[in-house]
Amino acid sequence: MRVAMGVEYDGSHFHGWQRQKHQTETVQEKLETALSKVANHPVRVICAGRTDTGVHGVGQVVHFDTEAVRSDKGWVFGCNTQLPDSVSVRWAKPVSNEFHARFSAQARSYRYVIFNDPLRPALGINHLTWQYLPLDAERMHHTAQILVGKHDFSSFQAQGCQAKSPVRTVHHLNIRTKGSLVIMDIKANAFLQHMVRNVAGVLMAVGSGKQPVSWVEEVLNHRNRTLGGVTASPAGLYFMNVDYPAEHQIPLHRVDIPSMPL
Amino acid sequence: MRVAMGVEYDGSHFHGWQRQKHQTETVQEKLETALSKVANHPVRVICAGRTDTGVHGVGQVVHFDTEAVRSDKGWVFGCNTQLPDSVSVRWAKPVSNEFHARFSAQARSYRYVIFNDPLRPALGINHLTWQYLPLDAERMHHTAQILVGKHDFSSFQAQGCQAKSPVRTVHHLNIRTKGSLVIMDIKANAFLQHMVRNVAGVLMAVGSGKQPVSWVEEVLNHRNRTLGGVTASPAGLYFMNVDYPAEHQIPLHRVDIPSMPL
Repeated sequence: MRVAMGVEYDGSHFHGWQRQKHQTETVQEKLETALSKVANHPVRVICAGRTDTGVHGVGQVVHFDTEAVRSDKGWVFGCNTQLPDSVSVRWAKPVSNEFHARFSAQARSYRYVIFNDPLRPALGINHLTWQYLPLDAERMHHTAQILVGKHDFSSFQAQGCQAKSPVRTVHHLNIRTKGSLVIMDIKANAFLQHMVRNVAGVLMAVGSGKQPVSWVEEVLNHRNRTLGGVTASPAGLYFMNVDYPAEHQIPLHRVDIPSMPL
Repeated sequence: MRVAMGVEYDGSHFHGWQRQKHQTETVQEKLETALSKVANHPVRVICAGRTDTGVHGVGQVVHFDTEAVRSDKGWVFGCNTQLPDSVSVRWAKPVSNEFHARFSAQARSYRYVIFNDPLRPALGINHLTWQYLPLDAERMHHTAQILVGKHDFSSFQAQGCQAKSPVRTVHHLNIRTKGSLVIMDIKANAFLQHMVRNVAGVLMAVGSGKQPVSWVEEVLNHRNRTLGGVTASPAGLYFMNVDYPAEHQIPLHRVDIPSMPL
């Protein structure tokens, strides 16, 4: 039987999602260890999108195959008993064998949260990116629209990214403020490695006036990572949600995450 | 010269505010160490309200005396360079010798944040209290009003609390919801040790239906800690603000703290 599952995690102290040979502090390792105990056999999971060190998961989705028979609640509560405090299973449900957490996904959404204030914050430092230069969020939003649509995002791709093609389709890219916070929401069919953080870095450079508005198009057209400046910190990045075809009836993440702006 | 200062801190990994003999992980110790470097002489601070282990500071206020001459910005940036990431000075200003962070304070405000959901959260776990039993926030708010005004709060006082009198005046006590969060805001002339957490614990027992509405008055009139049940977790508690006479022109804390609901 195939089971889909929603997973929330605080990425602050994890070496990212993906299981590594000599590193047990990954979300995948913790989840598979917990699931294997609940299922009473070794379980391997496939996720919708692997996140980097320090990146948080709000609506990560995984699937796994098992012969164990458990109720939906049994999977959720069983796993949560076994998991560390920084990982929590939000839901579980049986799905057809056609469902694949990665390949069935039609779109992914990320949020990037910037605390824009001259003074560094003490509260929430693992859950936001601090920028002391004043950001013009309207300018950022306006400029960002050039990235919406189908483009070659080579300029926003990490060196070493193993994607076969650098072409991605950005469905929306919105920047808004909430008090001293500048919040970027981005949705695309899929993302290249570091793509969200590189987009955030480029837009912050425009928002602070370090670069002109025209620079974003220049970076995009360059199709090479060398122009795009620094990769923004992972601390303010949240993997929010995954879209699947309606037939699979995959739940959306809950929207009221404590510790993050709504 | 006397200087007043606003301090923000993430209490998650501190053994509370107060300096201790064999414990360097206190906010006071970190702040005094930083200030002593900036002032170039030993500095001792007096705070508006000492907070317990795990309790966060949003608008803590301190004062200290110094012969060093620094600009307001010099104190702020100098300290922030010396302080750990989990403590941040927000402002500094010279005050008259009549100003006393503790004795001049007319009122203190605290916020208590409860994540009310059947499943435990993974994000923000050091910054909220998780309650899986459904809470009736309206019932909590309604019941809480019995505590507003001048009362003997012995029933809400930690054993070992060294206050001379258990009488305190609560100016307001409001409970509201925001998504899955239940947020309690309380303001009083001063607080007994654990008073906010004991009030939160009692109101949660009423909100979950474990206790009848009448129980709060019963606990209050009992004037003894034995009736009031458990002390709620410090993780959701924020020291928000201190009121001083207008003549001192003490700034209010900033309201848009990242990582906490507004």
